[in-house]
Amino acid sequence: MQFVTTILCGGAGSRLWPVSRELHPKPFIRLGDGQSLLQKAFLRGVGLPGVTEVMTVTNRELLFATQDAYREVNSAGLMMSFVLEPCGRNTAAAVAIAALRVAEKHGPEALMLVLAADHLITDQRAFADAVSKARDLASAGKLVTFGIKPDSPETGYGYIEAEGNKVRRFVEKPSLEKAREYIDSGRFLWNSGIFCFAAGTMLQQMKQHCPEILAASAACVQQSRTAAGEDYSQIELDAKTFSSVPDLSIDYAVMEKSDQIAVVPCSIGWSDIGSWTALGNLLEPDSAGNRIQGEAVVHNTHNCIIQSNDRLLGAVGVDDLILIDTPDAMLVAHKSSAQDVKHIYAQLKASGHAAYKLHRTVHRPWGTYTVLEEGNGFKIKRIEVKPGASLSLQMHHHRSEHWIVVHGMAKVVNGEKELYVNTNESTYIPAGHKHRLENPGILSLIMIEVQSGPYLGEDDIVRFEDRYGRA
Amino acid sequence: MQFVTTILCGGAGSRLWPVSRELHPKPFIRLGDGQSLLQKAFLRGVGLPGVTEVMTVTNRELLFATQDAYREVNSAGLMMSFVLEPCGRNTAAAVAIAALRVAEKHGPEALMLVLAADHLITDQRAFADAVSKARDLASAGKLVTFGIKPDSPETGYGYIEAEGNKVRRFVEKPSLEKAREYIDSGRFLWNSGIFCFAAGTMLQQMKQHCPEILAASAACVQQSRTAAGEDYSQIELDAKTFSSVPDLSIDYAVMEKSDQIAVVPCSIGWSDIGSWTALGNLLEPDSAGNRIQGEAVVHNTHNCIIQSNDRLLGAVGVDDLILIDTPDAMLVAHKSSAQDVKHIYAQLKASGHAAYKLHRTVHRPWGTYTVLEEGNGFKIKRIEVKPGASLSLQMHHHRSEHWIVVHGMAKVVNGEKELYVNTNESTYIPAGHKHRLENPGILSLIMIEVQSGPYLGEDDIVRFEDRYGRA
Repeated sequence: MQFVTTILCGGAGSRLWPVSRELHPKPFIRLGDGQSLLQKAFLRGVGLPGVTEVMTVTNRELLFATQDAYREVNSAGLMMSFVLEPCGRNTAAAVAIAALRVAEKHGPEALMLVLAADHLITDQRAFADAVSKARDLASAGKLVTFGIKPDSPETGYGYIEAEGNKVRRFVEKPSLEKAREYIDSGRFLWNSGIFCFAAGTMLQQMKQHCPEILAASAACVQQSRTAAGEDYSQIELDAKTFSSVPDLSIDYAVMEKSDQIAVVPCSIGWSDIGSWTALGNLLEPDSAGNRIQGEAVVHNTHNCIIQSNDRLLGAVGVDDLILIDTPDAMLVAHKSSAQDVKHIYAQLKASGHAAYKLHRTVHRPWGTYTVLEEGNGFKIKRIEVKPGASLSLQMHHHRSEHWIVVHGMAKVVNGEKELYVNTNESTYIPAGHKHRLENPGILSLIMIEVQSGPYLGEDDIVRFEDRYGRA
Repeated sequence: MQFVTTILCGGAGSRLWPVSRELHPKPFIRLGDGQSLLQKAFLRGVGLPGVTEVMTVTNRELLFATQDAYREVNSAGLMMSFVLEPCGRNTAAAVAIAALRVAEKHGPEALMLVLAADHLITDQRAFADAVSKARDLASAGKLVTFGIKPDSPETGYGYIEAEGNKVRRFVEKPSLEKAREYIDSGRFLWNSGIFCFAAGTMLQQMKQHCPEILAASAACVQQSRTAAGEDYSQIELDAKTFSSVPDLSIDYAVMEKSDQIAVVPCSIGWSDIGSWTALGNLLEPDSAGNRIQGEAVVHNTHNCIIQSNDRLLGAVGVDDLILIDTPDAMLVAHKSSAQDVKHIYAQLKASGHAAYKLHRTVHRPWGTYTVLEEGNGFKIKRIEVKPGASLSLQMHHHRSEHWIVVHGMAKVVNGEKELYVNTNESTYIPAGHKHRLENPGILSLIMIEVQSGPYLGEDDIVRFEDRYGRA
């Protein structure tokens, strides 16, 4: 029996700015142990008995970062597939397309487990037990949702009223008073957004409850395949047909309407890490209640969450603050306003400020670059190229570049010449010269690039060849 | 008649960390108009009618930065002299040595005006009027102090009870209750630490009230002159004899004991800029009471002082905070704890952390350097050399250096060769090669240095020749 873990990897996580940004969203946030939420979701998925494939629904911009994240925690041996969305269309569209592909490839009885890439589950054994129960129910034709036994009257979650595995009703995010009632009753569970079902069951229920989503999704899959040719391991969805799929959540489109629903109540240490308070609470507090990651000096300061990885933070006479430092942006928020951090993200996005979208270190398919300094007529970058990776063959009209290798070895095309540049060696690329940078080695290549010229914008680039399809 | 403005330029300003640091102390803090407190003190001093000399008491470490600061605001034409203290010994020693030198050079009747380098006076006309009155009193043999008419019951200042120009008594920093009484009485003034006197009067009063300070100071001047030769424009005090001068304030040693005291009451917009609240209040508040310099995005945030010059700051749901960002350290303090910022400075100093002493950009006699990035086996610096300045002829055992000029022109000694390196050109200095960097031009030279080697500490340097006496 095929069993496909489906990871939904998208979403901005604007409440976790400045660490979370549009091109480095919440799933990529790394916790204290160095693993990102996405890596934890991936390991959670592949660690279940009987899993035969991991299908990830993400987008083109995040694909390489996702593959890098998986590679880092060793994904060898398991079948991997990717669905690339041209834009976000909510979970119903994602699940429909995933189910269509699984049913076609593995048959309608193949089971699927749908996980969010940005949740945390701390008790893997309890989770595996819950999945085992869910598989039995799914094999018997149920759409299974996972209901978390609540330990506090959270107002940020939807609830499920349950009786054993039976769902009585779904309820929206409640008031605090209502949430307390729910907890006291003992009948309510948090709606976790984790699902298990047979692909065929989902498709049949969608046909019944949201036929327009199913039809539009099927048309999109068909159109995308025609355009790009058949490749089960990776499909990039056609932008036009995908944008015509209605934007609805899977809960709203199917789960809340279907009579095939079952719930598995469980206690698995689940959190959706919805704010800096949730993320900060993963750190151990010191005797003053401060949870500190990085370098901080505090005086008369209590119950703060402090993350300062690159710089020193001094805190004096403050309580209950969230202090999050990144190389180009710093957040200072009161804990009681943790949900409002999204307003900063929104303001930055509305004004077109880069800090909602990019970090100072920018990820590319071949590695990363970091602008270290910009001045009048010059720009200095640190460029890191992954082993075996290569930048495009390119040319700039208005800038020349000095390249100095400080770690590893570079293979360089510079005009008509091809040469190797070793650690502590340099080369010079005059403006107008075609050039290419490649890391032929097995160590990371780290290079300092000093650009010089009257115009240094990223758009002064002519790409002649690119192995990542950007030429 | 000679009239010497004496500027006392030292002190840490630990309450203004992280902008103020041991080697970039409070006088060097720049205000919104781009001028530093020191430059303002200097312009205040030279802007008075009849000033014939500016004598600055500072130390070796700050001398070049002080001279640069003066040069920037154009000090041409005025006689300038410097007294370099090997350590801080409070104001009585500084005033004694200044008065000894002025009396010897210009005669005992020469007048002196003593100013702190780190205070602010916003009404120059009222100040000039007050100085004019003070000169008359000083010429008549008085030690004159400037008493500021108070506009609030400050508890951080000492007070002077006065009647006309007569001083009834000096009082220490009062309780809030006492301070309110003082204000209500109308007889009390803030003790500003600005003084005016004839050099001979001060020396005569010191002989009477603190003869040991005067004797030790005279011995120090004598010893220092013997060691270094006579040069009125610059004397570096002998460390051993200077350290034997008692550590007392001029108020305590002389002013509070002398019967020759007079006070000039005045309203000159004076502040000692004793904390971030005082400094922040110089910025205009927006409609939410936030005083912002730099780039900040705020939501539901009120009455904060925000200074973020290099990075974006997002503030959410916070009130009455002081948020001060610098390239390598950030301060978050509650306004009510503004005085306690000194504890962070003290903790950093006690633990030997560089951030109490140095900024990321380090000032040298020849210009500045900034470490842009450090990694395993490499370090990248931005080096700026002033026109006409030169680094020492030097050699490193363990590192080679790539130099890329991005602004101006460099004259380089590289082993046996001497060459000019123009903008967008580079050169390579192998480990073990003697080398020197010089800016022969009239523009600033900006250079990117990429160091490579197994050891990159600043102490791997052999200096052969240095025009700043560091070889």
